Amino acid sequence: MKFKVLVEVDLKAAIADPAGATIERALPALGFENISQVRVGKAIRFSLDAANSEEARQIVQLVCDRLLANPVIEDTSIVVEPVQASD
Amino acid sequence: MKFKVLVEVDLKAAIADPAGATIERALPALGFENISQVRVGKAIRFSLDAANSEEARQIVQLVCDRLLANPVIEDTSIVVEPVQASD
Repeated sequence: MKFKVLVEVDLKAAIADPAGATIERALPALGFENISQVRVGKAIRFSLDAANSEEARQIVQLVCDRLLANPVIEDTSIVVEPVQASD
Repeated sequence: MKFKVLVEVDLKAAIADPAGATIERALPALGFENISQVRVGKAIRFSLDAANSEEARQIVQLVCDRLLANPVIEDTSIVVEPVQASD
């Protein structure tokens, strides 16, 4: 069974985010005054073959732990969706 | 009114994604054989003050066009959610 996966990897709230801070500093010069708390993370998408969505989620969690994220400084959120048969 | 915004910026499908390709090449060595089509994008989160969700969405679209994304090579998707009064 095929699944579409989205893993969002964000720096933990306590960790400085220079990319987000740079965007936030640039916004007022462009006329955007009402934006705050900018944080930049990664959105990693892929396709996965697994027996069912439970197994798919376990595999994705392992991939996050072993390759995609650094649990010391990053949080991950996982979305797993089955692909329709017509795809 | 306060809104939480998520902007996902992904390379268009036709554009090469070296980060995604590197992850995809690394996975079999870690024992993950069933993963394909890895793409790495950005997940940008921020808070926004706006009169209503229609205006919030328009502001976010402008921010994407002027700063966050390069429309020649990137696609954006926008999620705008009102923050509950208790926050």
